[in-house]
Amino acid sequence: MSAPRPVILDLDPGHDDAVNILLALASPELRVLGLTTVFGNVGLDRTTRNALITRQIARSDVPVYAGADRPLVQARISAEAVHGESGLDGPHLPIPTRGTEDEHAAAFIIRTVRAHPGEITLIPTGPLTNVALAFRLAPDIAPLVREVVWMGGSTDTGNWTPAAEFNALADPHAAHVVFGSGVPLTMIGLNASHQAIAHPARVGLFRDLGTPTGAFVADLLAFFAEHHLERYGWDGGALHDPLTVAYLLRPDLFTVQPMHVQIDLSGGPSHGRTVADLWHVTGKAPNAQVMTHVNADGFFQLLRDRIATYPA
Amino acid sequence: MSAPRPVILDLDPGHDDAVNILLALASPELRVLGLTTVFGNVGLDRTTRNALITRQIARSDVPVYAGADRPLVQARISAEAVHGESGLDGPHLPIPTRGTEDEHAAAFIIRTVRAHPGEITLIPTGPLTNVALAFRLAPDIAPLVREVVWMGGSTDTGNWTPAAEFNALADPHAAHVVFGSGVPLTMIGLNASHQAIAHPARVGLFRDLGTPTGAFVADLLAFFAEHHLERYGWDGGALHDPLTVAYLLRPDLFTVQPMHVQIDLSGGPSHGRTVADLWHVTGKAPNAQVMTHVNADGFFQLLRDRIATYPA
Amino acid sequence: MSAPRPVILDLDPGHDDAVNILLALASPELRVLGLTTVFGNVGLDRTTRNALITRQIARSDVPVYAGADRPLVQARISAEAVHGESGLDGPHLPIPTRGTEDEHAAAFIIRTVRAHPGEITLIPTGPLTNVALAFRLAPDIAPLVREVVWMGGSTDTGNWTPAAEFNALADPHAAHVVFGSGVPLTMIGLNASHQAIAHPARVGLFRDLGTPTGAFVADLLAFFAEHHLERYGWDGGALHDPLTVAYLLRPDLFTVQPMHVQIDLSGGPSHGRTVADLWHVTGKAPNAQVMTHVNADGFFQLLRDRIATYPA
Amino acid sequence: MSAPRPVILDLDPGHDDAVNILLALASPELRVLGLTTVFGNVGLDRTTRNALITRQIARSDVPVYAGADRPLVQARISAEAVHGESGLDGPHLPIPTRGTEDEHAAAFIIRTVRAHPGEITLIPTGPLTNVALAFRLAPDIAPLVREVVWMGGSTDTGNWTPAAEFNALADPHAAHVVFGSGVPLTMIGLNASHQAIAHPARVGLFRDLGTPTGAFVADLLAFFAEHHLERYGWDGGALHDPLTVAYLLRPDLFTVQPMHVQIDLSGGPSHGRTVADLWHVTGKAPNAQVMTHVNADGFFQLLRDRIATYPA
Ligand SMILES: [Ca+2]
Ligand SMILES: [Ca+2]
Ligand SMILES: [Ca+2]
Ligand SMILES: [Ca+2]
Repeated sequence: MSAPRPVILDLDPGHDDAVNILLALASPELRVLGLTTVFGNVGLDRTTRNALITRQIARSDVPVYAGADRPLVQARISAEAVHGESGLDGPHLPIPTRGTEDEHAAAFIIRTVRAHPGEITLIPTGPLTNVALAFRLAPDIAPLVREVVWMGGSTDTGNWTPAAEFNALADPHAAHVVFGSGVPLTMIGLNASHQAIAHPARVGLFRDLGTPTGAFVADLLAFFAEHHLERYGWDGGALHDPLTVAYLLRPDLFTVQPMHVQIDLSGGPSHGRTVADLWHVTGKAPNAQVMTHVNADGFFQLLRDRIATYPA
Repeated sequence: MSAPRPVILDLDPGHDDAVNILLALASPELRVLGLTTVFGNVGLDRTTRNALITRQIARSDVPVYAGADRPLVQARISAEAVHGESGLDGPHLPIPTRGTEDEHAAAFIIRTVRAHPGEITLIPTGPLTNVALAFRLAPDIAPLVREVVWMGGSTDTGNWTPAAEFNALADPHAAHVVFGSGVPLTMIGLNASHQAIAHPARVGLFRDLGTPTGAFVADLLAFFAEHHLERYGWDGGALHDPLTVAYLLRPDLFTVQPMHVQIDLSGGPSHGRTVADLWHVTGKAPNAQVMTHVNADGFFQLLRDRIATYPA
Repeated sequence: MSAPRPVILDLDPGHDDAVNILLALASPELRVLGLTTVFGNVGLDRTTRNALITRQIARSDVPVYAGADRPLVQARISAEAVHGESGLDGPHLPIPTRGTEDEHAAAFIIRTVRAHPGEITLIPTGPLTNVALAFRLAPDIAPLVREVVWMGGSTDTGNWTPAAEFNALADPHAAHVVFGSGVPLTMIGLNASHQAIAHPARVGLFRDLGTPTGAFVADLLAFFAEHHLERYGWDGGALHDPLTVAYLLRPDLFTVQPMHVQIDLSGGPSHGRTVADLWHVTGKAPNAQVMTHVNADGFFQLLRDRIATYPA
Repeated sequence: MSAPRPVILDLDPGHDDAVNILLALASPELRVLGLTTVFGNVGLDRTTRNALITRQIARSDVPVYAGADRPLVQARISAEAVHGESGLDGPHLPIPTRGTEDEHAAAFIIRTVRAHPGEITLIPTGPLTNVALAFRLAPDIAPLVREVVWMGGSTDTGNWTPAAEFNALADPHAAHVVFGSGVPLTMIGLNASHQAIAHPARVGLFRDLGTPTGAFVADLLAFFAEHHLERYGWDGGALHDPLTVAYLLRPDLFTVQPMHVQIDLSGGPSHGRTVADLWHVTGKAPNAQVMTHVNADGFFQLLRDRIATYPA
């Protein structure tokens, strides 16, 4: 087995972000160098607190760096309706006993990428503000990043507006910076994550583990499901964020296609849309690998197996 | 059987428009009061000529009215790459022996709707310029139109840009006028028509009729297929426009859902997109019935049966 | 003296439109073929009524044609705060004894231009909707129009938004059509009309005529002044619309400069702005003569002299 | 006399930026804590070099911090046509013997503002990228800044497009961040600086000093004038940037008015415009003091007097 791949998780936990942290920290193929937090599903203070809580549940000592509390340009929108007031409503949440590091998330990203040129994979599962700030403060680092694997956007419909997915809409200018940076980039959007529904049988996979971590994940998924039932009439929530880490662990479970993606910054009804050139009508060179198909059973099995490694 | 439904076909023939004319004129459930032409797939002179040609092939004396030669606001784009120079490349085309009426298409629409309040169904299968001009010149008529059934737009990807379908992109301001008019409106977009592929076996249905009209339709479909093969890798062309008349004849073959559709007029990368609120995230009242599912076999069988009524 | 120049006044009276009608009808250099009305300062029903009233005050039999009751594309805004509920608040208004013609304003414009190719000057002093509808319905007429002299837009600040003047903002898509039509075009915007303030001494010029028409004009100007005092702190209203006819009568009183003007259709904060390339930074060819300087004393003297010709 | 006011000059030298450095460093009322550089008139490498050169000419040891080499969101435009290839074409330029500090301009701004809460005045005379990066990285500092005095924007016409001034157009998203930050803000735009023309007599004021610094300033002004002659037909260049420091030194020479300014981010023809609500038509609370009048003779005299303090 090759050396573990060094990664930074950039998140706005958020139920599915929390599951992604647990998945990454349970995966020997990865070495998680840090968790960086960003506003998003809820405010930065709460996403940061939720990162600290999840780290504690994972019994990890990975450092946590707080980042942007608002988008690069526009005003903040929030997603409290989906994730509850805390951002992790559902399970019982412990009080975190350790805090964040002093460094800004963007500074940590810059420093780490420079220290490991060509090696670092960034895994943002929230608005791309921290990554964009890092890329603008240190234009030298984009060519030094190994890969960015982002959960966000959509090739079909949005979820926050008819056109736009939440992470993209929450900071489209940041997305524009990252998609224009030349960095190797994978976009995992709603069109993919809507193939990964945590319906009751899949929630049961985690409940049946009989461990605290299994119960925590099951509680997260169960809470998350309620919103999806209301809006889409589905019997489970789309488990967006863990597709990122799962894709790095098992690319064979997924299909990705190269295409050009432009971020809509128009201020019109499609503001924040990831306009994906699925049929290559623009003639523009691809700037992203876009996930188009998910082996959902394989994905949930992988996730269950990794969560199962947490102690009882 | 009830009295036939009076309709006006507003078109930019175009292969699939021509098939739609033939379908409508062969359907006793409809009474076609006129064909109105608009720029679109090719310039107005050629779409008008193609309407005249198709009328002649159908041995019909329905009047033809020429309309707008350019969009309501923006500059003209054209679709010659898809439809060939004539707009009907493929079959042998006769020289039309009868011309158009003197009245402008918009004036004909206004006069006809006023003469039959609550009765007229408009079936546009090109840019909506003529309908928008009529609605702006005579604001009294929108409440008098029975229904508009339009081929255009998309709830997922576009075909002329990643975001926009051709008929919508060709005159989005006109689409905005029609979608904002309060008229009962059905939108049949690419998401529907991409379910109606004229693959070789389906083209054979028409060839096998052994009639001149059957051969004409088969030739149209065969030519149209080539473009789709190149772009999408499909083994046939999507038969967009005849879905409109087919939907009026046999609504049971289709699923439509009410939703709010906003036209993107931003000038950005999603300009011309029919932003459809599939998941009702905007809270805006539906302004259109949007087709979401097509029984393709049923549709092609219907079309074959009607084309079969043309004499040998 | 050469034959009088045939003109059509297209208006949304409106105090200054009414004065423009009186000025034109008192000027032997012009032959007013018709008044066409458009929504604008108030709704179409009232702008049309105000045109009829003003015609009656002028003891003229020029025909009046009602036109568009709403903009080409967007929703209607209104200017009642400036012009009062009637659109002509201030003077006593007679009840008009004669009505409009049956023809739509756009149809009248089309018919008249075709009948007098190269001769007709259009003088719109409201939103450009009627002219745009005519140009789109009959693309052949733009090259047949002698000249369009429009009051609207601004090279500096707006009055309805910081960026946009009312007539331009009320239908920017129509303005886009006209500015893109290739027609010889003069734009008289706020930057010019703000040089033509009807301060009390100038109002007195009309009051002192001692005629009913002089009193009518004085009453209009006095009412109009109040709004300007509130907003700008000026001691009189800017007499926008009559600059159009005055410019045709006495071009020596004005400076115009050729420049490229683009209409902002972005939907952003500058929507409706007439973006004028005063310094030729775009390299685009001029599409309009833009008025930059007004000899205000000369203008008011001219106006007074013509109003003085109305009988006591 | 009170303690000198601590300031940071954030610049993209640029002829007028260089004059502003010399003015500030010759003014005992100010304590210049640092020069921060940004891309703009030319690329960051050259604006930084020009800051170093100007510091050397001023015989100052103020630290220089390099900042952003590109805008916050969009792609870079440049102004080489105006400032020559070096960005300081015209005078003989010495080779700088001392370099920049290691810290990023934004980090220096953050650190300095936090160390002197409520005291620091930022004087940006280029694109606002560094200030915006600082405000987004450290949202706590906007309330700690004493004042921002920016040269940029315009209440009337632009210079890079018909609508937009160069510094605003070069990074409108950064301007949006700063104008939305709540910081006390003065905007000195083209409408003001076009009142401060360095015509030959005024250039002579500096030439006549008979000092190297006087000659340097005269050479800068003379070169800068050529561009203005070509474009505007003026007999001198508008001396934009030194109005900022002059305003802090002698506010009595200027008129400023509070108004709301919105940055146009539409992507349309007014993109980058500082849409200034001069007539308070929006009802929005002012977010800037906007300079409307300049006592140009007083300004040039002040500048001459300060440049005169440099040794012979
Ligand atoms: Ca997330
Ligand atoms: Ca068609
Ligand atoms: Ca008017
Ligand atoms: Ca500068």
